[in-house]
Amino acid sequence: MNTAATSEELIIRTLGEMQQERCSSSDRPLDPGCLLERDAERSADRLGCAAVDFPVAVVLPAGGSGERMGLATPKQFCTILNRPLISYTIQAFERLSWIGTVVVVLAKENHDLMLNIVQKFNHTKVKVVHGGTTRHRSIFNGLQAFSSTTDSLTPKPKVVIIHDAVRPFVEEDVLLKITLAAKEQGASGAIRPLVSTVIATTSEGYLDHSLERAKYRASEMPQGFLYDIIFQAYQRCSEFDFEFGTECLHLALQYCGTNAKLIEGPPTLWKVTYKRDLAAAEAIIKETLSMSACIIAGAEAEAVELAKTLQKNLNMMETDVIPCAKESNTEYLSKTQNFIHISTTASNFLGTLDMVKRFEDTDHTRLYPVVVVWVQLNMTKQSVDSQKTDELTAFRSLASEVIQGNVLLYGIQIDHTKI
Amino acid sequence: MNTAATSEELIIRTLGEMQQERCSSSDRPLDPGCLLERDAERSADRLGCAAVDFPVAVVLPAGGSGERMGLATPKQFCTILNRPLISYTIQAFERLSWIGTVVVVLAKENHDLMLNIVQKFNHTKVKVVHGGTTRHRSIFNGLQAFSSTTDSLTPKPKVVIIHDAVRPFVEEDVLLKITLAAKEQGASGAIRPLVSTVIATTSEGYLDHSLERAKYRASEMPQGFLYDIIFQAYQRCSEFDFEFGTECLHLALQYCGTNAKLIEGPPTLWKVTYKRDLAAAEAIIKETLSMSACIIAGAEAEAVELAKTLQKNLNMMETDVIPCAKESNTEYLSKTQNFIHISTTASNFLGTLDMVKRFEDTDHTRLYPVVVVWVQLNMTKQSVDSQKTDELTAFRSLASEVIQGNVLLYGIQIDHTKI
Repeated sequence: MNTAATSEELIIRTLGEMQQERCSSSDRPLDPGCLLERDAERSADRLGCAAVDFPVAVVLPAGGSGERMGLATPKQFCTILNRPLISYTIQAFERLSWIGTVVVVLAKENHDLMLNIVQKFNHTKVKVVHGGTTRHRSIFNGLQAFSSTTDSLTPKPKVVIIHDAVRPFVEEDVLLKITLAAKEQGASGAIRPLVSTVIATTSEGYLDHSLERAKYRASEMPQGFLYDIIFQAYQRCSEFDFEFGTECLHLALQYCGTNAKLIEGPPTLWKVTYKRDLAAAEAIIKETLSMSACIIAGAEAEAVELAKTLQKNLNMMETDVIPCAKESNTEYLSKTQNFIHISTTASNFLGTLDMVKRFEDTDHTRLYPVVVVWVQLNMTKQSVDSQKTDELTAFRSLASEVIQGNVLLYGIQIDHTKI
Repeated sequence: MNTAATSEELIIRTLGEMQQERCSSSDRPLDPGCLLERDAERSADRLGCAAVDFPVAVVLPAGGSGERMGLATPKQFCTILNRPLISYTIQAFERLSWIGTVVVVLAKENHDLMLNIVQKFNHTKVKVVHGGTTRHRSIFNGLQAFSSTTDSLTPKPKVVIIHDAVRPFVEEDVLLKITLAAKEQGASGAIRPLVSTVIATTSEGYLDHSLERAKYRASEMPQGFLYDIIFQAYQRCSEFDFEFGTECLHLALQYCGTNAKLIEGPPTLWKVTYKRDLAAAEAIIKETLSMSACIIAGAEAEAVELAKTLQKNLNMMETDVIPCAKESNTEYLSKTQNFIHISTTASNFLGTLDMVKRFEDTDHTRLYPVVVVWVQLNMTKQSVDSQKTDELTAFRSLASEVIQGNVLLYGIQIDHTKI
């Protein structure tokens, strides 16, 4: 670590390692939704609270066996970065203040597993219900959890959202649109353009005709319903529907005459179906976690210069450079989970400590860890080895202290000699 | 490295690191198809050669812009483990002796890029053609490459397979079925069950009706045609078809009255569409590369014991234990790319050298690297440090020699003391 010329490479590499450590070592929950559209969501949540002045609940059927995955573990319980898929999905709802109970419907044999997940990841809105033999029976069981008048913890909602446990990346924007459309129209559902042409087959296995792609859509999740409508639809539907049906929107249409409003959703609504999708989901989470960084540069010319070079080289990330971590910069601090703190003063951990304190106050580290790289630019050659060892010890002790608050602190010392 | 108790952990970890090194450092082509169903394919290739006694060629439209990826690079040129996606797809066809020319149709601006790929990855059957403004125009351009009577290099095939550049995992089994059905019926296409329900929408964005999932299928690639039929269909089809059509099977039906035979394909036929799919494709390649291993254990009791413990612990892999790498065991050697060679004799690299020689003779390392972990169990404490250093030097020199032949050689010395 001799010249400033290599220091940005160092920091970039360190950021990568941190990201990996954060992902592999931490048992803390990662919040998938916030990662995806953090800013949009913050304002949307405010919007959501204003727009949704009626009770909303969720039914999350999670009874799938994971056969298509080719795995022993049902896919909703497969872990990505130390957290089960279903926990990400639950979190996507729990973080929204305008959404109440999340009824998770699952096979009896997974009851204890689910309770462990609820406890470990501190889920607070979950109610567990046992499923039926088919998807529709499970959803009906989930809906019945609300109709029980004796259970005051799960009052009947105005609107119920039905989602899949294996679609973890649902964003507030689409949830809000689905909820409002369901309130207005009685039913609503997310759709996506068809990726492949859909064809009708003859009974002998030949092409009968192909559908005109533009007129059709893939029906995805989430879907929203006035509770009374979807509950009534299930009460009226046939054994055949319960056994072979797949589409809740169809039941609302057939048994209650309600034509669902269709809402175009983003590609992230995709369903984790095959084993390969677990790798895809992990890639999405990792990428969104490393999308932005904030560089705190102080006022010294050398630090500012390094900050600017870093900003230029971290071109895959959205980067802000700010002079200090004071309260006036809260806006920047709240935007990201990655911080580079450049200091030209030896042993000045005070700024970092102050920042960590603020993270604790604002709950910024509750859902997923914050990474701070503390870069010390030694401008002179005066410091002696024993002093360096003391600093190192102090830094290590600080790092192991703040990790309790979900902050991963890394240090780089650079002996900076002007060329 | 003191006791045998940790030696299997060591080896397992080393295998993981090798896998990583192999994937990240090697510019050698990785063969996706062979990875997926190696044994099945070997016999299928023999089957293919016997069953296909007529000329077969491929048209590979690769003009997509990658818009849906959210990437600057068109997805077919995105690299996975140092190799562009399209090169994997080309390789999936080139490795089959019964398939002739692969016509790659692409935008003019990607011509040089493609030629570089052809050269770098040693593609031998590729002919590059410039594409039109739509997918159908591009395919027609590709088909016309065969009809030119002046070009003796691309004779008109009996059957032409149309595929996507972004479906790299196509296996010989499905290609053979598609080809034979096309020869028999005039047209054939791969299908998959629908993952989502398909719904018809009203012009106002409401649900009109949902399709009964069981009666419909997603139309995928590859598709196969008698060359004369698909060429005629394109000659007869309308400007509207060229502009807005998506389905070749539809053209064969409408303009030549040919009902395609539909063939159920495996989930690996999926199309790399979104950025997340690149991570999924990488995971598939890595997993298939590490699916099996062969342990060469010799006859010493300690070596055999270690081999058996390893086999038990490498339970995610299909593992064979054989006594030596002699010719009688070629069957086992040809099944995998991963080898663990356990030796109780100091400095005996002869067996390893012999094996590497055989790999060269059989072209086993041409498409993707072979990993050999050489484990030396020191049964006595007699060897002195200087001897160890000599051995290390000899081993390093051997490792840097065999890497030229695409063999990655790793060594582990274990001072084995009985407990």
